[in-house]
Amino acid sequence: MTDHSHNEPLVIFMPSGRRGRVPAGTLVLDAARQLGVEIESICGGRLTCNKCRIRVEEGQFAKHGISSASSHLSPASADETRLLEKLESLDCRLSCNAQILDDALIFVPEESRAHKQVVRKAATERVIDLFPAVRQVFVEVDQAQLGEHRGDWGRLQDALAAKWDLHNLTIDLPALRELQANLRSGKWAVTVTLWQDHEVIDVQPGYQEGVYGLAVDIGSTTIAGFLCNLRTGEILATDSMMNPQVTYGEDLMSRISYAMMHNNGLDKMHTAVIEALNHLAASTAREAGIRQRQIQEAVFVGNTTMTHILLGISPVELGGAPFALANRAAMDVKARELGLRLHRGANIHVLPAEAGHVGADNVAALIAEEPYNQEDVTLLVDVGTNAEIVLGNKEWMLSASSPTGPAFEGAQIRFGMRAAPGAIERVRIDPETWEARFRVIGEEGWSDSWHIGVEFPVEEQPKHLAAGICGSGIIEVVAEMFLAGILQPDGRFNPDLPHERIRWDGKRGEYILATAEQSTMGMPVVVTQDDVRNIQLAKAALYAGIKLLMNEAELETVDRIVLAGAFGSYIDPKYAMILGLIPDCDLEKVTAVGNAAGDGARIALLNKHKRTEAQRISEWVTYVETAVHPQFQEEFVGAIHLPHASDAFPHLNGLLPELKSGSELNGNGRIERRRRRRARNPEIGD
Amino acid sequence: MTDHSHNEPLVIFMPSGRRGRVPAGTLVLDAARQLGVEIESICGGRLTCNKCRIRVEEGQFAKHGISSASSHLSPASADETRLLEKLESLDCRLSCNAQILDDALIFVPEESRAHKQVVRKAATERVIDLFPAVRQVFVEVDQAQLGEHRGDWGRLQDALAAKWDLHNLTIDLPALRELQANLRSGKWAVTVTLWQDHEVIDVQPGYQEGVYGLAVDIGSTTIAGFLCNLRTGEILATDSMMNPQVTYGEDLMSRISYAMMHNNGLDKMHTAVIEALNHLAASTAREAGIRQRQIQEAVFVGNTTMTHILLGISPVELGGAPFALANRAAMDVKARELGLRLHRGANIHVLPAEAGHVGADNVAALIAEEPYNQEDVTLLVDVGTNAEIVLGNKEWMLSASSPTGPAFEGAQIRFGMRAAPGAIERVRIDPETWEARFRVIGEEGWSDSWHIGVEFPVEEQPKHLAAGICGSGIIEVVAEMFLAGILQPDGRFNPDLPHERIRWDGKRGEYILATAEQSTMGMPVVVTQDDVRNIQLAKAALYAGIKLLMNEAELETVDRIVLAGAFGSYIDPKYAMILGLIPDCDLEKVTAVGNAAGDGARIALLNKHKRTEAQRISEWVTYVETAVHPQFQEEFVGAIHLPHASDAFPHLNGLLPELKSGSELNGNGRIERRRRRRARNPEIGD
Repeated sequence: MTDHSHNEPLVIFMPSGRRGRVPAGTLVLDAARQLGVEIESICGGRLTCNKCRIRVEEGQFAKHGISSASSHLSPASADETRLLEKLESLDCRLSCNAQILDDALIFVPEESRAHKQVVRKAATERVIDLFPAVRQVFVEVDQAQLGEHRGDWGRLQDALAAKWDLHNLTIDLPALRELQANLRSGKWAVTVTLWQDHEVIDVQPGYQEGVYGLAVDIGSTTIAGFLCNLRTGEILATDSMMNPQVTYGEDLMSRISYAMMHNNGLDKMHTAVIEALNHLAASTAREAGIRQRQIQEAVFVGNTTMTHILLGISPVELGGAPFALANRAAMDVKARELGLRLHRGANIHVLPAEAGHVGADNVAALIAEEPYNQEDVTLLVDVGTNAEIVLGNKEWMLSASSPTGPAFEGAQIRFGMRAAPGAIERVRIDPETWEARFRVIGEEGWSDSWHIGVEFPVEEQPKHLAAGICGSGIIEVVAEMFLAGILQPDGRFNPDLPHERIRWDGKRGEYILATAEQSTMGMPVVVTQDDVRNIQLAKAALYAGIKLLMNEAELETVDRIVLAGAFGSYIDPKYAMILGLIPDCDLEKVTAVGNAAGDGARIALLNKHKRTEAQRISEWVTYVETAVHPQFQEEFVGAIHLPHASDAFPHLNGLLPELKSGSELNGNGRIERRRRRRARNPEIGD
Repeated sequence: MTDHSHNEPLVIFMPSGRRGRVPAGTLVLDAARQLGVEIESICGGRLTCNKCRIRVEEGQFAKHGISSASSHLSPASADETRLLEKLESLDCRLSCNAQILDDALIFVPEESRAHKQVVRKAATERVIDLFPAVRQVFVEVDQAQLGEHRGDWGRLQDALAAKWDLHNLTIDLPALRELQANLRSGKWAVTVTLWQDHEVIDVQPGYQEGVYGLAVDIGSTTIAGFLCNLRTGEILATDSMMNPQVTYGEDLMSRISYAMMHNNGLDKMHTAVIEALNHLAASTAREAGIRQRQIQEAVFVGNTTMTHILLGISPVELGGAPFALANRAAMDVKARELGLRLHRGANIHVLPAEAGHVGADNVAALIAEEPYNQEDVTLLVDVGTNAEIVLGNKEWMLSASSPTGPAFEGAQIRFGMRAAPGAIERVRIDPETWEARFRVIGEEGWSDSWHIGVEFPVEEQPKHLAAGICGSGIIEVVAEMFLAGILQPDGRFNPDLPHERIRWDGKRGEYILATAEQSTMGMPVVVTQDDVRNIQLAKAALYAGIKLLMNEAELETVDRIVLAGAFGSYIDPKYAMILGLIPDCDLEKVTAVGNAAGDGARIALLNKHKRTEAQRISEWVTYVETAVHPQFQEEFVGAIHLPHASDAFPHLNGLLPELKSGSELNGNGRIERRRRRRARNPEIGD
């Protein structure tokens, strides 16, 4: 710093504390840029966007050694004052209009920072740094003149280079087609939307704020979408729907078979998911009050079969060894190439996969939970129609997949349904009376406990009407039935328990969870022996996969367990462990985080650097092929029991009912035989 | 070079003369690469493509100081010998199979060089270096294996990097969609088609040779296409057709008006040209015996209005000052984005423009003729519905455009037609008898001269039947009529010339060029006073533009004139000068090069480096706005005369008829008045 510069005003930006001297008269916005403080500005100093508000912190001058000059900043112009009045921010200044005249301590509020942080409301509250791939800048362009031949796009490029330091840009053809009309109707001032600071995807006349993105987790059974404001990070709308591909097969293998057996099978499933995504885009846009065509980017995650079909790539190679992916890396494709009706220049980003059976959804869950940044060994279990399991810490990480089937999502369950209003999501069964209470999505509190056989008083309508049971409800009801002794450890109904809630069809029992009066259909919502069997098969497949990974890592226990899954509502870790979905662990260290894949998709939508991280992580994780592992069968058989035939669960001490070890192996053998029959011929029932 | 290396064999490649030492056992192909000699190879040493044949030049060993060793190369394997026998090339070796054992002098024949040269058959014979943007490589890919998760695209990338040193590749979605099936049906050996060594646009199973490209000059009136083999540079088929947009307006201004006045005007004209291009692609592919979907790239040139409409960009801004282009730079767009039915991954390249009225067609003519590489001052005139004029040399270059209208392309001419079989393309009129002979496209030699009024002998059918007159025919017949005294210098028919070939309708004469017996229609093909007027107006606009450029450059004369234009057949420079289309010049220095824009398109198709040159030149040329120049009117009026009212043509001395200066100014004034009336109201006839 020269002597001369010591006469220049000292400026300190809070809360970062960055400080430096700038020539008197420097705009606060420019001073901030010089000192590496990023203040948001779309209009670039035209008193239009009002994003760059700052405050002079007079009260703290002495503390920071700032002289108490009479005027630190140039006085506000009439235009600026009028704007600040309108914004009810008269204590603020616009940094694009205020010049630094003397030493100043300037506070940049959160909402004025270029890269904001969004608080993510999950079990573990975490922040997302905002670095969206799509952003807008406002720019004034030289007017076309006779004798000057750069062309409108050339002139726009020059303006973007001079004003925003953006170089080597390309322009998407649809944007170029409307460029001339928009430049002229905007009187040579336009709002430019950029993708990755590289491609101009939209040019609108004048100042027009609004960048929106859609993050979607394409599950085999459920599609969940989040529409976000890319400037603020805010979630504007969420929606979920059944994946319409279920018509062509409930699980991945049946969809792959469908593509293999039907000439136009891939086309049909591709078209179905594209149509569903168009509906999702429309419904979330409607809820957010924007137009569907304003969605300028989308991030998609899903298992590999889902992402292959999404891109119109046949999934048949994923159906058999060596389970070869067409492409493991992330992809960017124009939405219009897929028939997606988003902004006409929108790109879609599909996160990378790890291996043939661990897809972008798992990578998304990883970047959401970041177990690779921790010392503790974390077990991350993402439960869906296909479950993904990741085990490791910052040193190493193993992943595997387990074909659990759709039972956890309410399919293959008599009264199963997806997590939507009317679904039973939590259950309590009184171990003394065997009566049930439940909670229904969309209603407050617990249901009353209705006694079967007691005449229903007409004047007392039940408050909680159930339409079915969703994933978390299934897990709780089976666990509660086990705790109440209705189910034996082998999963069979206890034959020695006469109660009006337990009905028998020969040797097969069923439990009335909600009475006819408590159901929207006027018939009882029951949990059948088949439902219980399907849950057992699903959880055994999951547990066996987990055990194989733990064996591979030579671990007896894990430090933490993260339970993820688009159950709709969060699963209670205690019930997951009672059921034997996960191995024993300190319950304090087990967290349920909901749809981590969806969270990860949203994170990648809001922060492009997380896409780079996703690519790195996807290549770093070691995939373990568990399905063909020689020990899989053995681990599977042991895990069919509730919670397990041999593994100890010391952290459940006192919670589990006393084990009656008599009929265990017998029942177990029956289930195993049934599983084998089914594998040979899926048509055969029980 | 180390001592050790002196023991290594010396290898010299001819004709380049590059030499160096390589370890004994080095493949000839590898030695060539090390020494910077590019030998073509698609299969990369699999004895499949047979492109890398070389010869050992034993006879010339002594001359190059090469020891006369007994075996310079390793003996041919049985496979190689079998191949060479099949190719009848037993004097050759395949450089991918032959190892260098001792000093060798190796000749690389033209057809084996990686970057061939194609002789361009124009007036000035020139070669095109082959550097196509699209090329093929054959590659073997690691098979997918359990426990290895790169994905098929990852494996293909790795193989392309290892074998062909190709990095940072992307893959077009349609190619990715078929990648897995093609890798497997090709048994993990595939032929990959690359665009700009950057994007994989096609993957075919096994070894499948064939890269094709289409170069198209989209004229306002005529569309001309050239289908080329991109590996050999050969033209496989050419075709031309009327631009279907003529329905919406004959010249540029009327098309721009159509886009302005009709809501779907742009759409209609865009669809029309795309459909025409699809027909052109189909017809040329059929002629070449390939499928339309095998055309992997296309280069398009045209004036700015044509390229705007091609890309679906409204041309309305080009219709009025300041004549702003949407985009001046070159563009690459996926053919499928425009609805062009080429290869599904094909890109199209549109050459850059210079200014609002000097488009990619003129840039193409420039890279074909390269006046910017010469000492001589060249005048390049590209005649079409809109004429482009370029003047300069390697130091400076000016360009202008002149709205000549479509008369030179046979439009606005009673019997005008495009250059197709049946069109009169050359004309001779006997100055003594005023009888005409002509040549017809598609027939040999000159027509007989039939005397009007003489009974036509039934047994003698005329050999040459005319359907109309094309551009070059129009120019010759008007010039010959002038030379024969049928037309006066002011363009009016000589009233003092009674002859059965000259008919009168009041004061308006017409000349019978082909008799009813000589025409396909059974009626005489005539040249009317209006036809002559339209040619006069067109050539005056052109000449005025040339003069303004010469004035701007302060030049009285030019060193060379290059006459270009899609007349179909070449224009005779002498007649162009007699008509006063171009200024005086040594006739030896005036060359007609035909469709230089089409040639330039083909050059850019075959040599990607020429695209870079085109971009540089397009920005370097100085455009002069002649249409709004204050002297334009004055120059125009003087240029209406045949050949000119005041400019001298010393190089035509002895060729022109004696001037009768009496009625000149009078007739001149009449035409000028008519032109003004027309400019006000195009409906008004004469």
